Amino acid sequence: MKNLRIGMIGAGSMGREHIRRINTELRFATVTKFYDAFPLEPEAYYGALLAESEDALIQDAEIDAIMICSPDATHKDLVCKCLNAQKPVFCEKPLALTAKACMEIMQMENALGKKLVQVGFMRRYDPGYQKMRELLALENYLNNILLIHSKHRGGMGGKVPTSKPIGGPGNTNKLSFIDQTKLGVTNGPIHDVDICRYLIGDDQDRYASARITFPRSSKYASSSANPCFITLKTEKGIVVTIESFGSFHTSYDIQCEVVCEDGIINLPSYPQPRIRRDMMDGHEIPTNWFLRFNDAYDREIQHWIDSVHSGELDGPCALDAYYACCATDAIIRSIDSGMEETIFYDDIPPLYT
Amino acid sequence: MKNLRIGMIGAGSMGREHIRRINTELRFATVTKFYDAFPLEPEAYYGALLAESEDALIQDAEIDAIMICSPDATHKDLVCKCLNAQKPVFCEKPLALTAKACMEIMQMENALGKKLVQVGFMRRYDPGYQKMRELLALENYLNNILLIHSKHRGGMGGKVPTSKPIGGPGNTNKLSFIDQTKLGVTNGPIHDVDICRYLIGDDQDRYASARITFPRSSKYASSSANPCFITLKTEKGIVVTIESFGSFHTSYDIQCEVVCEDGIINLPSYPQPRIRRDMMDGHEIPTNWFLRFNDAYDREIQHWIDSVHSGELDGPCALDAYYACCATDAIIRSIDSGMEETIFYDDIPPLYT
Amino acid sequence: MKNLRIGMIGAGSMGREHIRRINTELRFATVTKFYDAFPLEPEAYYGALLAESEDALIQDAEIDAIMICSPDATHKDLVCKCLNAQKPVFCEKPLALTAKACMEIMQMENALGKKLVQVGFMRRYDPGYQKMRELLALENYLNNILLIHSKHRGGMGGKVPTSKPIGGPGNTNKLSFIDQTKLGVTNGPIHDVDICRYLIGDDQDRYASARITFPRSSKYASSSANPCFITLKTEKGIVVTIESFGSFHTSYDIQCEVVCEDGIINLPSYPQPRIRRDMMDGHEIPTNWFLRFNDAYDREIQHWIDSVHSGELDGPCALDAYYACCATDAIIRSIDSGMEETIFYDDIPPLYT
Amino acid sequence: MKNLRIGMIGAGSMGREHIRRINTELRFATVTKFYDAFPLEPEAYYGALLAESEDALIQDAEIDAIMICSPDATHKDLVCKCLNAQKPVFCEKPLALTAKACMEIMQMENALGKKLVQVGFMRRYDPGYQKMRELLALENYLNNILLIHSKHRGGMGGKVPTSKPIGGPGNTNKLSFIDQTKLGVTNGPIHDVDICRYLIGDDQDRYASARITFPRSSKYASSSANPCFITLKTEKGIVVTIESFGSFHTSYDIQCEVVCEDGIINLPSYPQPRIRRDMMDGHEIPTNWFLRFNDAYDREIQHWIDSVHSGELDGPCALDAYYACCATDAIIRSIDSGMEETIFYDDIPPLYT
Repeated sequence: MKNLRIGMIGAGSMGREHIRRINTELRFATVTKFYDAFPLEPEAYYGALLAESEDALIQDAEIDAIMICSPDATHKDLVCKCLNAQKPVFCEKPLALTAKACMEIMQMENALGKKLVQVGFMRRYDPGYQKMRELLALENYLNNILLIHSKHRGGMGGKVPTSKPIGGPGNTNKLSFIDQTKLGVTNGPIHDVDICRYLIGDDQDRYASARITFPRSSKYASSSANPCFITLKTEKGIVVTIESFGSFHTSYDIQCEVVCEDGIINLPSYPQPRIRRDMMDGHEIPTNWFLRFNDAYDREIQHWIDSVHSGELDGPCALDAYYACCATDAIIRSIDSGMEETIFYDDIPPLYT
Repeated sequence: MKNLRIGMIGAGSMGREHIRRINTELRFATVTKFYDAFPLEPEAYYGALLAESEDALIQDAEIDAIMICSPDATHKDLVCKCLNAQKPVFCEKPLALTAKACMEIMQMENALGKKLVQVGFMRRYDPGYQKMRELLALENYLNNILLIHSKHRGGMGGKVPTSKPIGGPGNTNKLSFIDQTKLGVTNGPIHDVDICRYLIGDDQDRYASARITFPRSSKYASSSANPCFITLKTEKGIVVTIESFGSFHTSYDIQCEVVCEDGIINLPSYPQPRIRRDMMDGHEIPTNWFLRFNDAYDREIQHWIDSVHSGELDGPCALDAYYACCATDAIIRSIDSGMEETIFYDDIPPLYT
Repeated sequence: MKNLRIGMIGAGSMGREHIRRINTELRFATVTKFYDAFPLEPEAYYGALLAESEDALIQDAEIDAIMICSPDATHKDLVCKCLNAQKPVFCEKPLALTAKACMEIMQMENALGKKLVQVGFMRRYDPGYQKMRELLALENYLNNILLIHSKHRGGMGGKVPTSKPIGGPGNTNKLSFIDQTKLGVTNGPIHDVDICRYLIGDDQDRYASARITFPRSSKYASSSANPCFITLKTEKGIVVTIESFGSFHTSYDIQCEVVCEDGIINLPSYPQPRIRRDMMDGHEIPTNWFLRFNDAYDREIQHWIDSVHSGELDGPCALDAYYACCATDAIIRSIDSGMEETIFYDDIPPLYT
Repeated sequence: MKNLRIGMIGAGSMGREHIRRINTELRFATVTKFYDAFPLEPEAYYGALLAESEDALIQDAEIDAIMICSPDATHKDLVCKCLNAQKPVFCEKPLALTAKACMEIMQMENALGKKLVQVGFMRRYDPGYQKMRELLALENYLNNILLIHSKHRGGMGGKVPTSKPIGGPGNTNKLSFIDQTKLGVTNGPIHDVDICRYLIGDDQDRYASARITFPRSSKYASSSANPCFITLKTEKGIVVTIESFGSFHTSYDIQCEVVCEDGIINLPSYPQPRIRRDMMDGHEIPTNWFLRFNDAYDREIQHWIDSVHSGELDGPCALDAYYACCATDAIIRSIDSGMEETIFYDDIPPLYT
């Protein structure tokens, strides 16, 4: 099998980490070219070469597929260009900033008659979440889900891209605190919104309403509200809560608890040796998402590569992004209204039904 | 020291358990008499004798102090009778069903010029909660509290008194589903309301607003909504969430997580031997509150006995009950409105300031 | 019930802790007098008064029962004096330094026609060990015990009395390193020897052989070998291992794992709030036995007091001490021989059969 | 890079699992041919074709490297044949049944002037053990190792190949109970012997003595002693204990605890969602080594493939196997003598120094 030739758009810390992953760990693919507006020295890219522009990369006949790791607000237009070029594209979350934009992407795919987009909801590739979903689906075991509590405590880097302004380090076009906070919703909590839908695993049950509230601010908050607390309710009445910190200096701590009629199930801790020392009994916890979800990223990207080879994209898709953005749209409205907001859905294009 | 002679009002499962505790485990006190409208055979009361009536018991010159374990709705009037008789009284929670009723009790104590009431918030005597409070109070350790998540999953007994009708087993005067649900708020979640205030430990920070929502119903729900999910916010912005099941068939599972700027602290699990067997690694969890909080009850009642002997009541008092009921009042209003409700406070009588 | 009047012999850190416990926490008893060769100021003894001598205390008509917390090597003679005075006696472990000496005590009790001795094997009163024994005894659950691993990692005090010379702080009569090490066996590992027999719970199965080996020395070792590792085998073939540190600066860490045909059971951890902070997820562990076994000591001493009142001593007795010393005798012989040593038993006096 | 063409000798459950792994999961290699005396239908081998004989496979010019998963007793001769053919060889543990045989292999490699052998000590590729080794090596953290406790509780399959007779399912040439038990030492505990040396990580400290004892037999024991308990001591005095079950019906449970001067470190549990249900709080544990060490196997075999490509074999080698067999030789002698046995070492060939 010939290696897939990937073009990477956006080669900041996330993009470079994926280039490293693909070019040194995974199989059947190579990132041969990349584009970044502020490139580092050539040695930083594991053999990938700098392209002239995003457009040149997307049009390049020697590039088979595109990965997008650029700032959130650029994702949608870049994905549309890939669809115009009829190239498979892996786009880091969020696929777009609104449900409407996700719908436009779905409609383009529908017009093309095939799915070309995978979205970076990598938690679906974490063995812990996968095992939870499997156990939740067992008949006569835990039975109906009643509540889910998802905790996203976002790591030690003050540089978490929650509120990264568009345009790279040279940019001085700062967003307001409230706009940064809204942008943060589609960056952090969108993971929780998606993974809880994945755990529920019920096509007949969608999020129906959403409400956000803001606790007192952590001293580690900077340009946006930190933390926030979100309550969602599904059409069948499952209550989903999301506690989300854009930055949390203790660790990168991801928790998930699903409360069912006949039991409770929790995401496993990050496995580390237990240490008893200096009057404490405990274990290390990871400080960032690269450590915590390293295996999930490996499995996610390998699965995408393999499915591009096979011609059958079956990872998280534009519809998953659309459902997530319907919820984040309502959460963002709730920032302004202070109220519980209803979640609305349009008709789903036939390709997705 | 002469043993304190206690009169027990209400000797159902809870009252009898306290009689057993005092007459066989604790020191410096004996339950010598009790009143219950539906008494069992005399052997069931560990030597305590049946009184003629509640009033006779309260007036009895050979009774030094009163304990109240009767149905929730009867508490307030009985406490007032004890205050009229100027006898120390230990009242199981809730002290009363409304903040207004708690205020009347405080005003009676204020008129008497001394506190005579202890309220059965036994979680304050659980070593786990006490250690949490101690660690939360350390300077430069965990720092500001941002959120607290309290889980009350209420045990296997379908007979949990959440919705117990007034008047004992013969009663046919059933409350409506909505009234049962409201009554449940002052029975179960009131524990969480109080213990979170205890953990916050800040006299300058009170609950400011409350909202309740109801997930889909558990199949184990019967005469009231089960579970419920409550969100409170304090004046300084701490968000407190309460997940509460009146009945939960898996176990009696109490969890508490406090999220601070510089760390997270959780209530310890109930300590039981770890067992690896039959492809599982785990430990037993208790099925009811008698097991889970047995030590806390012992320490609570002994502390009350000792403080009655010393003349200095310093356990959870009517003011604590008042603060808790200000919150439950708002929660109950939120059942009707479906909205976030503001919490109101009246002036505190001088005895309490 | 009249309070039991207890005379305490040996009021060092352990003795004073027991006086505090009895005079401020427990019921139905008071330590009214004590003897110690090097007493502190009177305020240190919670109201107990200094007696003239050990003998005066034992003979005192106003003393109903004796507790012995003096150095290990003095225990046996003091117990014999109590038996001559026909007074109930609680003796901290070890009852004596050899099986032969324990046998003499049993023979004295046999001649008196009743048991008067309880031995301070307080682990039998720890709820964790009790629950393990209960679960191990269930039919068709864990089934035959095959191995037990007991870990005694002895706390941060370099002043652990493992090798305390006889005669108090003024004493200059130092024991040799090897004699200190032998004395240590009857101080620390004897707990493990006893509690494993308690867990096995089989009168038809006694320890058959013992062997000790010494790993490289911890830098915290001082006047005796630290740590040691002991392997015992019972008559039915259960292998019991004991890892024992006289001093271990990390914590006071007690572990016990019982490996059965159909499962494995472990002593629960000391329950403390779980803390996630500074890249660690863990909980505090205790630094000494007062913390770790505080509840067990309370329950042990209360049980002794209650059983003296009832006239039926049924706590750990001289026979338990004898069985433990038969094993420690062999362990001590193994220090000299470097070999596995057989454990011998004499006939048990009729009082104990 | 051209895929490595691997020939598999012995395609029972372990061999087929490795073929599946290489041909469907890993990169840069394919098992193109295999030999097994009792082959299943062709579909069972993921595209690998049956060779005529072991020798034909080893000599095959279209085979670049050999993997050996045949019965233990055949390993040594097959490895020597590979060395004669100058082909890289991955041999499942044990490399040979005795230290002497391992030495012959080292001498052959020495004569060839290069290492061609990797041995299947896959635990070295488990992230838990790797992290332990890393933490143990930190300066001023845990400091000197004093004891290591390794537990190997060997899974639910009564068909664990601990004592598999040579020659496949048709073989009737049964070994005696004692010979099976000896053969078991080089199959199960050899893992613990090696991984503890890996954790110690000190080239200047080798095992000095060994002793084995047998607890009462589990009802799940069949053709060999089950369990056994081994005590090793290193030249610097570290005591290593190994509890090993050939078959253990509760689970496949691997534990490792390293006790140091300044702390204790334990192998992490197998990460699984925590479940609270039916009065238990726990998580699943794996039933066999394929589940428990799946990732370790993946990483081990991929590392071998990559190092064959690079021409630099640096995985566990014949010297590691030799050191392990020096210990197992002594353990086997101890079965006969019932005594502690000294461990002997010959001169190491220059290639390994």
